[in-house]
Order: sequence, then C-alpha cells, then structure tokens
Amino acid sequence: MDTRPIGIFDSGVGGLTVVDKVFRLLPNENIVYFGDTARVPYGNKSKETVTRFSKEIVKFLSSFKVKLIIVACNTASSLSLGALKKAFSIPVIGVIKPGVEEALKTSKTGRIGVIGTERTISSSAYEKEIESTGRNSFVIQKSCPLFVPLVENRWLSGDITLKIVRKNLAPLLARNIDTLILGCTHYPLLKKAIQKIAGEKVRLIDSSIAVAKYTKHLLDNKNLRGNTGKTYAKFFVSDDTEGFIRLAKVFLRRNIKAKRIVF
Amino acid sequence: MDTRPIGIFDSGVGGLTVVDKVFRLLPNENIVYFGDTARVPYGNKSKETVTRFSKEIVKFLSSFKVKLIIVACNTASSLSLGALKKAFSIPVIGVIKPGVEEALKTSKTGRIGVIGTERTISSSAYEKEIESTGRNSFVIQKSCPLFVPLVENRWLSGDITLKIVRKNLAPLLARNIDTLILGCTHYPLLKKAIQKIAGEKVRLIDSSIAVAKYTKHLLDNKNLRGNTGKTYAKFFVSDDTEGFIRLAKVFLRRNIKAKRIVF
Repeated sequence: MDTRPIGIFDSGVGGLTVVDKVFRLLPNENIVYFGDTARVPYGNKSKETVTRFSKEIVKFLSSFKVKLIIVACNTASSLSLGALKKAFSIPVIGVIKPGVEEALKTSKTGRIGVIGTERTISSSAYEKEIESTGRNSFVIQKSCPLFVPLVENRWLSGDITLKIVRKNLAPLLARNIDTLILGCTHYPLLKKAIQKIAGEKVRLIDSSIAVAKYTKHLLDNKNLRGNTGKTYAKFFVSDDTEGFIRLAKVFLRRNIKAKRIVF
Repeated sequence: MDTRPIGIFDSGVGGLTVVDKVFRLLPNENIVYFGDTARVPYGNKSKETVTRFSKEIVKFLSSFKVKLIIVACNTASSLSLGALKKAFSIPVIGVIKPGVEEALKTSKTGRIGVIGTERTISSSAYEKEIESTGRNSFVIQKSCPLFVPLVENRWLSGDITLKIVRKNLAPLLARNIDTLILGCTHYPLLKKAIQKIAGEKVRLIDSSIAVAKYTKHLLDNKNLRGNTGKTYAKFFVSDDTEGFIRLAKVFLRRNIKAKRIVF
C-alpha cells in the first residue's frame, strides 16, 4: 500500500477529464493536479518550450512526493515524454500509448484516424506508437486547430461547430477509418458533434478513459495502490483560479478549491 | 535628435501590424520588438498574469535603452497600461487611446462598436476611454474569441469564417453603429470578411495605424525623433523563431531575423 499522491498535469483545464476518470477508477488514490492556465495552450508551441514548461511542472509536483506522474496533455505527451522520463526518476505516463492500445483493441479493419493539435500531429507520436507495435494498420492523421477554441468558448453544437467538424474530419472519413483517436484532452467535449459527423460506425477513443485504466494496471503491477481511507485532491493553476473552478464543476461535477502558483 | 530605439511588444505576432505602420510612418526610427509566443494568447488571461508578463517584457526592452514603449497588444493595453506607467519611467503608449481618438474623429453618429478579446471587452477599457473624453456617444462592445484562432490558422475567408463573423457582429449591427474599432491586433487580417458582413457604411478603425500616428505626434512633441541614417529593427520571441519569421514575412513583406529569449 502506498498513500503517496498521483501527480497529473495539463496545459489547462482539459486534463480534468483524466482526473474525472481516475476518481472513478481509482477512488482510493490521492491526487495533485496542475493546470498551466497562464501559458495555455501548448498545442502550437515548440518541443523545446513545451518540454521546458513540463519539466518545471514535474519539479513542482515532485515536491508533493508523488508516486507517479500522468501527463494528461497530449501535446506534452507527444513532445516531452522522453525528456521527462530521462530527467526524473518517478514513473511518468503519457496519454499516447494508452490511447493507441485502446484503439488497436477496438479497430476491426486496422484503419485508424488520429486528430489532435498542430504539434501533436506534426510530431507523428501516435503514428510512431502504432507502428512500434508491429500491428498491421493504416493510420491517417489530421490536426484540428479550431477544436480547442470551440470547446473553450462552449460552442459544442450548432451549425457552425458541425461545419467545422465536418471540414476537419472529411479527409479521415474519405479513407474509411473505423476508429478515431481523440488526441487532445479537449476533444471529448465535442464527442457528440464528432460522432454525428463521423457516423455511428466509427468508434471514438477517449484517451482519458484509456490512461486511467493504464494507470490502474501499472499501480497494481508495481504494488503501488493507495489506501481505502479518506483521500484528497489538490488543484493548482498558474493563472487565476476563478475560471478554473467554474470549469472544474462542469468536468468533475463537484466543487473544488484551487490555488494559484507562480514558478 | 534621439537615436535610441522604440520598444514594441505583443503577446505574439499580431503586433507586427504596428511595426509595419511604424516602419512606414517613422522610417528613421530604430525598433526592438518582443513577441511572447511561448505564452500567447493573452486575451483570456487574468489582469494579474498579463501585468506580470508585460512587466517582464518592458524590463527586457529597457535593456536596449528604448526611448519609448508601444504596447501593441490590446489586452495588455487594456489590463496593464496603468501598472506599466507606474512601474517604469520610460513613456509607455497603449493602443486604446489612439484607437478611440481615431474612432471619435471618424464617427458621424457617435454610435461606435468595439470588438476585442474576452479580457479586453470585460475590462471595458475602450468604453471608459470614450466616456473620459466627455463626447456624446453610444458604445456597444462584443468579445469575438474565435477571431484569433481563425487568423492564426489563416481561415481569413470562406463560408465558415463569414458565418462566425456574422454571428459575432450581429448584436453590434443591430444597434446601427457607423464605426467599428478592431480592438485586437489580429483583427485587421479579417478586415475583408468584417467589412463584407458590416457593409460599406460601417467604418473600420485599425488601431495599428492610429498608434503609429500617435507615436509620431508624441516623438515630435517631446523632440525625440530619430536620425535619417541607417536604421535597425531587432526581433525577439519567447518560443522558436521559425513560425514567427514565416508570419513576419506576411505582415511586413520583408525577410527578418529573430532570436529566442527565455526570461
């Protein structure tokens, strides 16, 4: 039994989708979350910058004696996971590998689509991960840079949103994918619109569920599971807490407290 | 005669619209530009955070012995101009006042619309500036949070862009404005789409032209104009230089060099 907390971070609020799944699947774990809301988004920033930010955050989370770090941000997972693993001795989990494993289990035809931010897609992290499994598959990728602003402004449905989703998914759907990885923490909030455009035959992979399952598996394997007593969840952000607390209520369906931290 | 450079900063590339106008109107001035591309955008961040970032940047620009600072970013002008003026002895110019003066000169009916980022609009900086002039006018404001991602992804025209512009401008047009302040450095790049939806009767105010005129006026008044010799323009960014250099070519129609700076 190991009561040390799990550290989870994201460029902003999106990683709360992962927190939500960890709450459900691992209710006996303590959590420390950091959202880099002063420097959000990461999706169009360079590898060097995202890695610098990620290292600062892992250093901060380490001060809580975390037993494990989950990089909930797909961009940071794509660009910086290797560097984090090299720089820190704590186990670090990204969202790419769990998402890929789930997609390979789900897909029947092996025709897998991946959508994500500009930098996630240009890094080809998903494509490389799928290739590394040696499984017979066809991967087609597409960055959807307007999806994050749509979610952040709560344009989750309606004519304009559907048009933007259709325009972005068209090249993937034309290649007959049967599985679509939602490669950004924001995208699950557009699930309904995406499913509507993609059709019921295309299965959507929400990395947040996959990463929570993967974390459970890892904790079991390493004998690091938490206790069954009272747990805590601490939330930190780099910008003001007001908007974060409001959105956290939507993501987690509970009231939380949060604190601003400036590095 | 004063050959010290003018310092200009923005959250990212948008401030290059101001650099372009300063190049044209003040060809004998040296320029040092900083774009905070690692932390862009500012438009949805808190006053405290934007002020902290702005102070760091002004401190950096001060190391070049600038004679004047132009805050090219409307959000930073709205939230942080007062704090910068208080903290530094160099003259600091924002984009709000010049934009307002131009709008008041242009408007015949006094019915003025203002569009900008979430934080610019919620600060009511434009409204307060117009009120402070004591001029008889009616101001209506609207934040357009999707305009910046549209510009950054080069969706400058087309069906979806026009629909988004129409949806955002509708409440302003319903109030019969005759003048519209483009209260964000990115918006001039959407000028064609905005003019198309607003109609030819609505005059668009591009703050970048107004602030360059204002700067010229101030330099003349304080006897701070530069020499007629060879000038330089230095560009610094906080993220990688590649994308910035590419966009600078679009904004300035010339090739520039840039350097990355980490505070």
